[in-house]
Formats: sequence, structure tokens, C-alpha cells
Amino acid sequence: MMIKADPMLMIPGPTPVPASVLEVLARAPIGHRSSEFKATMKSVYTRLKWIFQTEQPVFLYTASGTGAMEAALVNTVNPGELVLVLSCGVFSKRWAEIAKTLGMNVTLQEIPDGQAFSPDDVAGILKAQSGFKAVCLIQSETSTGVLNPVESLTAAIKQHSDALVFVDTVTSLAAAPFYMDQWGVDIAVSGSQKGFMTPPGLAFLAVSERAMAAHKTCKTPGYYFNFTQNEKNIESGQTPYTPAVSLIRGLDKALEMMQTDGLEAIFKRHQLTQSMAREAMRRLGLALFVESDILASPAVTSVIPPQGVSVDDIRAGLREQFGITIANGQKDLIGKIFRIGHLGAIFPRDMLTTLSALEILLYQSGYRQYPLGTAVGAAQEVMVASHD
Amino acid sequence: MMIKADPMLMIPGPTPVPASVLEVLARAPIGHRSSEFKATMKSVYTRLKWIFQTEQPVFLYTASGTGAMEAALVNTVNPGELVLVLSCGVFSKRWAEIAKTLGMNVTLQEIPDGQAFSPDDVAGILKAQSGFKAVCLIQSETSTGVLNPVESLTAAIKQHSDALVFVDTVTSLAAAPFYMDQWGVDIAVSGSQKGFMTPPGLAFLAVSERAMAAHKTCKTPGYYFNFTQNEKNIESGQTPYTPAVSLIRGLDKALEMMQTDGLEAIFKRHQLTQSMAREAMRRLGLALFVESDILASPAVTSVIPPQGVSVDDIRAGLREQFGITIANGQKDLIGKIFRIGHLGAIFPRDMLTTLSALEILLYQSGYRQYPLGTAVGAAQEVMVASHD
Repeated sequence: MMIKADPMLMIPGPTPVPASVLEVLARAPIGHRSSEFKATMKSVYTRLKWIFQTEQPVFLYTASGTGAMEAALVNTVNPGELVLVLSCGVFSKRWAEIAKTLGMNVTLQEIPDGQAFSPDDVAGILKAQSGFKAVCLIQSETSTGVLNPVESLTAAIKQHSDALVFVDTVTSLAAAPFYMDQWGVDIAVSGSQKGFMTPPGLAFLAVSERAMAAHKTCKTPGYYFNFTQNEKNIESGQTPYTPAVSLIRGLDKALEMMQTDGLEAIFKRHQLTQSMAREAMRRLGLALFVESDILASPAVTSVIPPQGVSVDDIRAGLREQFGITIANGQKDLIGKIFRIGHLGAIFPRDMLTTLSALEILLYQSGYRQYPLGTAVGAAQEVMVASHD
Repeated sequence: MMIKADPMLMIPGPTPVPASVLEVLARAPIGHRSSEFKATMKSVYTRLKWIFQTEQPVFLYTASGTGAMEAALVNTVNPGELVLVLSCGVFSKRWAEIAKTLGMNVTLQEIPDGQAFSPDDVAGILKAQSGFKAVCLIQSETSTGVLNPVESLTAAIKQHSDALVFVDTVTSLAAAPFYMDQWGVDIAVSGSQKGFMTPPGLAFLAVSERAMAAHKTCKTPGYYFNFTQNEKNIESGQTPYTPAVSLIRGLDKALEMMQTDGLEAIFKRHQLTQSMAREAMRRLGLALFVESDILASPAVTSVIPPQGVSVDDIRAGLREQFGITIANGQKDLIGKIFRIGHLGAIFPRDMLTTLSALEILLYQSGYRQYPLGTAVGAAQEVMVASHD
């Protein structure tokens, strides 16, 4: 078929880009040293601080979120120094891979997929071993759908050590509450293709005074991601090297829309689509991979398919019949869970669409415990209740 | 809210434009006498013949469908000559308004809203009065959702008179089967913003040899819409006056996609979304304004709201909560029906979305006879059955 519904991304990134942002992205690039672009860049720098809820500098890199993770470590930790990584899935574990590659001395603490860390876990680890330069963790573990309680984990880390706290907020920023300064986080990183409703290509890194101080004593801070180079360009509304001009102009538009709505409204919308997904799956009798509502990410909902139903078949059917993409599990979880993204410019309308299509696929795959309309009916009820 | 779902048009035109067509529309215009544009124009002329299922010429006007209706009459009927208009709603009645304005002698035959003409009706009318130069009718009456049986009506007209047969196929072309030559229709008109998946601005007029012969004897054939001027430009891939270049390039892309899929697949898709809408409304206990499935337009479904439920409220809620636009009734039917469009680039996915949202609005408006999920469940069943 040539005539088909435009693709609908229900994955935890890249997320859909609103038409108003696409229009800006379609404009011809302007020079990155022009006064027009400097004004845009200054606006972006200011707005990024608001997103991270920080008064401290936020750097913008033309890179993926992984680049910003490397930036955090390479700028602050010397080879041979101790790094603790709290891993609860593929993305939090990446901190360890990066740190090892950079020659750091890594302690990797892993918990089973689908679980979050507790402050007690952290206290136990830090009582057993000390001397960490940095503790790396994640807020929303995209591979499992877990939301770590970053506020209390950061407090526990600070109580039991002097380590810097680095948080991967790639899929949590602008979806789950995150308060960099208030919580005392030292570095937080994110990327444009997530809650920012912008295509991939930009990474953001918010940095505390403590982390900047560590950077000043770092012997191997790297070049492209170097904090000093980036910091000194902020004042003049520039970046040290040529940035992705078009993406940044689109990002400024997206951030403007986000500021107009406010963080509370954005969090509430994510919570609503998340609740719709979770309630629909429960009503269909399916098991949620993260059972606790509080420890579930507002960016992505992981679901265990019914016995005998293939994740590949569901995903292929959703794509072919409806033009909808949802995610498979990753690594060990491939085929064991499917993941419905609800991050960024995703609305209750999209969730009704996805759930009614998904329900058809489950039915076609032989799972017929409940009549058609059951899952989407549950989501409709959640939506109706949200208006009461 | 600045961040909201992009608008979703579930009205019988303008219809959604696929991303692949939008991309072409966004290109800078080229000269309308350039060889590149002539090639596009030739392609469009050929493809339009296929859509109308005719070997006879199809003219393209930069105008709305109403312009093409005027073109049909002004080019073939002299002032004072007799015209029969078979009116079953706002749009079919427009033939009479145009003919009167042009000084023609109009016999207006009206049937109640929601009804279609039968061949017996037509035979009765033509036995009671003769001498018509043209009989004007409509295939899909957009204001009520009726689909006239044009094939048998045309046969009845030809059996009982020598009149030319003019059919408004504005919202039926590329949605319901229409075979210009096989059925013996003399003029058929349509517009870009309907089944053609292109923005408004272009009108099409297919013309038979008989209608061209009538044109040659017409004393007041007008200027802009003149058949002779348009006919002689077809060979060279031109239009007599500057056309809407960008729209035509987008149209060519849309027609290419339509040809690749084939008419059968396009009709089938319209039938499916129509059935989903009709079955969902029936399951909710709502009355369809056109009871017969056979006489219901595959472009639009008209529904009588439950007692006490305001069409305005439903439409406002759909727009505000979901970004979805459906249509009100027109003229006497304002507030008495709502109309769900399913014309052009509308897919089962869109119908699931719209029905689940509409069901929420009905529920919020106090209509709670059935649990949430009932309407969309019925539509899901129709879709599942279509795959069996």
C-alpha cells in the first residue's frame, strides 16, 4: 500500500515532533556565529536551566545522550579513580561501560530487571565500600520502565559519601519531576529526542559547582565535551564548535511551548497517558513488568505478553495494520516484554489509538480472554476520571 | 495549552494530507509554462481520466468544486433552457441555485433529508415533464450522508429523456465506485480536498462527447471555465490561465499513490472505516441518519445524537480534549446530526481514535447507556472481521 497512515512512534524516543516544531526545523540553517543564532542559543541555555530546575550552567552538545554521559565522566573523574554504578538495566549499565573504557575503576551494583534501587540499598553499598569519586545512576531506566526514586537515592548517597552524583535523566526529564538543585544532583544529562519533542542530535548536561570544581582538577578532561570550553561560550550565546543549528532552532520552539504550559501540566499529561496504558493492560489481565505505580516510568510502560503471544508478531502487526511502532524488550528482555512509549508529544488521543490497535493485535494473536473494547474502555475510564 | 495533538480532520473535506504529499506541496513553485510543469500536468490529466474511469477529457480548474459545477452548466445550457435538479440536500440543491443565477429554467425536485432518489422517482418526474437540456444530481450528498444510486438513476434518465446527465461527485470520487463512461454520465465534477488527499483549490470536470457537442452550440459559455479553451490546452500539458502550481504537483503525487494502490483497495478502505463508524454508533444505540447501508455515503456518516446531548458540546469537547474535528449538520440539520468524515487519507486507526474519543464525549455529556469501550469495541470487531 502506498496510501497509509503516517508513522506513529509509541516508543521511548525518538518521540513525535509537533507540526509547529517541524515547521521551524524545515527552515534553511543560519550561520552559527550570527547574532540571530546567538539570541536563539541564549534563549535555549536559559530554558534548559528551567527544564533541569537549576541555576547552574547547562551545556548543549551536538551529540547523543551517551555523549553527554561520557562528558560527565571524562570531565570529572581521572583514570584509576573509583566510580560506583547503580545498574537496573541496559542504560544505567552504560555508565559502567563508559567509565571502564575511560580507564576508571568501576564498582557495578546490579539489581534484577524491573526493580528500582532503594535508599537502603545505596546505604548498604556505601557502608561496604568507600572512596568513590562519583556515583552514577539513572532516573527512568528505559529498558525496563523503572523509575528510580532519585531524590531519596541522592540524599542517601550524600549521607554516606562525598561522591559526586551523576544522573541519567535522558527519558525522565520533562516527564517525571526532577529538581537538580533542590535534590543536590551534580550532573544530569538528557537528549533532544525524548521529552523535548525534537529530533535526535542534541544532548544536554547540567553541572553543579562541585562537579565544576572536580573538572578543574581533572587531568584528562577531553576536548569536544570539555566543560571549560563549553562554559565560557554560554555567556556569548555560542557553542565552542559548530552545533546542529536547525535542531537547536527547533528545540527553542519546543522549549518555548513547554515553558508556556509549565512543568506541572507536562508531568500531569505523562501521568495520564501512563495510567491509561497501565490500567488498560491490567484490565486485559496482562502483567506489568514494573508492578508498583510509583516506581514505574512515566516515559514507557513495559508489559509481559500473554503466554503464546509473540512480541515480534504484535509489533509487526501494529506496524503493518496501523503504522504504529512500539518497542520490544532489549538484550535479555527481547521477546519477553513489549514497551509502549508515552514520552514527549504523546496525548491521551494517541494512547486510545495505540491501546485499541494493540488490543486488536492481542486478539488476532489468540488472546481472547476479554471482549474487544475492554482495554481501551479501561483507558477511556481513566481519562473520564481525570476530568472529574 | 501550547503542546497539543496536531489537528485531526474527521470531516468530509478538507481531508488529511499525507506527509509524502505535504513534502511536495512545500517545494518552491516552478513556472507553469516550464517543460517540467508540462510533464506534471500531462501526468495529472492522464491520471484524472483513470479516477473518473473515462477515456474522455478531464479539465482541471484552479477553483473549488462549485466552480466546476458552474462550468458544467454555463458551458452547455443556454439561459432559458430547462434544467432538472434532483435535490436531496444542501449540495445537490446548489445545482439549482447556480442554474437559476445563470438564467436557466429550473425544475427543482426535492426529497426529504436522509433519503436517496430511486430510478422510479426519476422515471415519474421525467414522465410528468419533458424537454430538459440537463438533469443535475449528486452521488454523495455530503450534508446528509446519502449515496444516490447514480448508475441506475443515469440509466433511468437516459431511458426517459435525451437530457445530459451532470453528476456532482465531489465527495464520492475515489471513495465510492464511479464509472463515468460505462454509466453514460455526461459531466462529473470533483475537488482536490476530498478523496484526492490534497488541500482545497483544484476542481476537476470530466466531459462526454455529448456534453462537448452541447457546448459547441452554447451561446454563453463563459470565459474562465470555457471548455474550448481548456480542451485545447490538454494536449500540450497546459492550462489556459495560471494554475495553482504547488497544489497540482501535490495532486500528481497523491494520484500516483492512488494508482499504485488501485481503486478497489481505495474503495475497500473507505467501506471499512464507514462500517466501523456505523457499527459503533449502532452498538451505542444511536440512530444513523441514513438507515440503509447501501444508500449511505462512504465519505461521511451522519448520526442523530441521543436526546439531551448537544452536537455543539460534542464537537467542542472533541476539539478541545482530543484535537479532533467532526462536522455539525448543515442548514436545517444544524444541531440535529453530527457527521463523521471518513474520506481520503483516513485509516482504520483514525476511526478507532475518533470513535473512542467520541464515546468519551457522549459519556461526559450524560449518555451512559453502555459501558465505555462499547462503541470502539464494535469498530474493533469490524476491523478484525475484515481480516478474516
